Amino acid sequence: MTFEDQARAAKRAAVTLATLNRVAKDAALNAMADALADAERSVLDANLRDVDRAREAGTSDALIDRLRLNPQRVDGMVGGLRDLARLPDPVGDVVRGWTNANGVQVRQVRVPFGVVGIIYEARPNVTADAAGICLKSGNAALLRGSSSALESNRAVVQALRAGLEAVGLPADAVQLVEGGREVTDELMAARGLVDVLIPRGGAGLINAVVNGSKVPVIETGTGNCHIFVDASADQAMAIEILLNAKVQRPSVCNAAETLLVHAAIADEFVPKALDALAAQGVTVHGTDAVQRYSDQVVPAGPDEFDAEYLSLDIAAAVVDSVDAAIEHIRDHTTGHSETIVTNDRVSADRFVAQVDAAAVLVNASSRFVDGGEFGFGAEIGISTQKLHARGPMGLAEMTSSKYIVTGDGQTRP
Amino acid sequence: MTFEDQARAAKRAAVTLATLNRVAKDAALNAMADALADAERSVLDANLRDVDRAREAGTSDALIDRLRLNPQRVDGMVGGLRDLARLPDPVGDVVRGWTNANGVQVRQVRVPFGVVGIIYEARPNVTADAAGICLKSGNAALLRGSSSALESNRAVVQALRAGLEAVGLPADAVQLVEGGREVTDELMAARGLVDVLIPRGGAGLINAVVNGSKVPVIETGTGNCHIFVDASADQAMAIEILLNAKVQRPSVCNAAETLLVHAAIADEFVPKALDALAAQGVTVHGTDAVQRYSDQVVPAGPDEFDAEYLSLDIAAAVVDSVDAAIEHIRDHTTGHSETIVTNDRVSADRFVAQVDAAAVLVNASSRFVDGGEFGFGAEIGISTQKLHARGPMGLAEMTSSKYIVTGDGQTRP
Repeated sequence: MTFEDQARAAKRAAVTLATLNRVAKDAALNAMADALADAERSVLDANLRDVDRAREAGTSDALIDRLRLNPQRVDGMVGGLRDLARLPDPVGDVVRGWTNANGVQVRQVRVPFGVVGIIYEARPNVTADAAGICLKSGNAALLRGSSSALESNRAVVQALRAGLEAVGLPADAVQLVEGGREVTDELMAARGLVDVLIPRGGAGLINAVVNGSKVPVIETGTGNCHIFVDASADQAMAIEILLNAKVQRPSVCNAAETLLVHAAIADEFVPKALDALAAQGVTVHGTDAVQRYSDQVVPAGPDEFDAEYLSLDIAAAVVDSVDAAIEHIRDHTTGHSETIVTNDRVSADRFVAQVDAAAVLVNASSRFVDGGEFGFGAEIGISTQKLHARGPMGLAEMTSSKYIVTGDGQTRP
Repeated sequence: MTFEDQARAAKRAAVTLATLNRVAKDAALNAMADALADAERSVLDANLRDVDRAREAGTSDALIDRLRLNPQRVDGMVGGLRDLARLPDPVGDVVRGWTNANGVQVRQVRVPFGVVGIIYEARPNVTADAAGICLKSGNAALLRGSSSALESNRAVVQALRAGLEAVGLPADAVQLVEGGREVTDELMAARGLVDVLIPRGGAGLINAVVNGSKVPVIETGTGNCHIFVDASADQAMAIEILLNAKVQRPSVCNAAETLLVHAAIADEFVPKALDALAAQGVTVHGTDAVQRYSDQVVPAGPDEFDAEYLSLDIAAAVVDSVDAAIEHIRDHTTGHSETIVTNDRVSADRFVAQVDAAAVLVNASSRFVDGGEFGFGAEIGISTQKLHARGPMGLAEMTSSKYIVTGDGQTRP
């Protein structure tokens, strides 16, 4: 089957999905979960073949860890599908509505996008998560996984499709897009067949999709997140938030990557912060003003304030004021999550108003910027763009809307 | 000034605009209106030079009509700016908010996009309209008008900038982007400097921007709108809606372009429809099944069901069922506004659920799908894409949002 055939089949399946009620979609999700649980053995076998192939190709241990499935991870995928079945259905929600003076009634109602393409890297669990979120939001999914996970993805998708068929729904609502690089290009060029593309993965993948796609893209993920500790901050609180944001899970996009400290408290706060970070095994990459406080601080290179470490490393600088912190963030932010720790109302308001990011936090850890923590129940990613959805994307963000206009013969004068 | 300098200046101005309250923005809009009213003479002189140049270049009368300004059209631009000052400010609206179990408070608040690029064709009144809508929604505007309207646009923008300066705001909040084709390419490539691009104009312009832009685009405008007259329709009502949608203003995107008639009533309805359309000077381009009823019907060519006439022409076909109508629309729609005239509840529900368009109408004219008719007060265009905004775009659709997360030291376990 060519890519275009796949996309057309997805579009046909999407017509069916768009009019399913919640009961039917939840039955499908549970059937997909059942089928995936039944297929655990074949999924794990397929995954072993992927892992062996990756190892032979000299793949890094970190990447192999992301690629590897085990019974717990398969259970996680199965449980994720069942969790989705317990969430409310966004489709059909009336966003707003009114009656015009002439009696014409207007309602804006949530509808599925139609066909959603997901381009992602080595984690095979994304396959089930993304397919489930698309199904619950009434969208057909074209899943473009990594070639390194091909056998695992095939086994997962085969199970999910069997689940769909078990409840009489079109299997083509969930398809794996296979083939070389040119197929990714076809997916990105498929305007009119694919309604939205969501890249999930590292900055390289996301930039390639953003720059190459004619299909509308929702940009997710890169988070060069700052913590600014203001002069008025509760310093003990600032240390707690700093450690949580940096250490609790360093590999994720809402983890802290840069510490900015107000000059007025640098002599007092920076040494405490350096000790606390060192105790957690964090390497600090600092400017001259930070290096003064400890010879453990590594000099920060010129680009270090622009990149995500995604590891136990953090960049650090001293700034002269809230405005200087805002300015630094404006120059280096990826627009994900930016934090101020302060007890000063004016500083907090200024930071919140002027920092341009999906989320701005006052006295709380940036690790809270997450669909699960926001209570969305499911998350397809965290949007760092301004169009359509910004911040954690749950089921509602996986929908478009349609105006339904009803009258009894009204015409425009 | 290079384009990049202009875009950076717009970005700096956007920082100021983002934190203005409504009083300040309304004062700016009124000052822009005053300055434009004062500049009427120089705007009309500049326009005369554009019109003369266009005439020498052999431009069509229709295009020259779009290009031409007169005192009434300048008054319309001035009045449009004052009307915007009377509308509520979308910025700062709390879209939703909640408190997490741990006491962390989350609010989703509307914020401006930042810098909005508008690429448009010959009408110089778009210059003032777009600048005003951007300003009211807190966005800096980069206006890429047509070279044919260059002198008019310069005069309008000069007046608007003078108005901004009169109230102490940065003039660079409104800029005209001048230069050759390569500057349009720079604008479309300016991801990171420009937050969203909105093309306004014909299908050619819109497709060029959609296909060429790396900046996120909101697609507006093309409307191949269908009217399906069901077997159960009130036929007098159907004629009224058909005439209104086709004739009241044929050149706009929400005008009807195709008539579909249920076969069960074709013998009775089609002759009435043909007479009524002929009486209004409408040429019908029909399939064989329609040509049977009158030798005035022109045979519809193979592509006529796919194009907008935007004139007193309409394509017509007979279909066997609601499903066949839905199928025809699925194959030919541009996703703008699709109408059913019916007294059958099941047909109406089916059509509403299955037709995939920004607006679906039951027993009302598609001419109602319009920001003004929807009560939005202002409209930047009608989106025919599914991402971000779908249907008429008012001020709220010209904003993004930001999550504001506040706590008293919470960290993630």
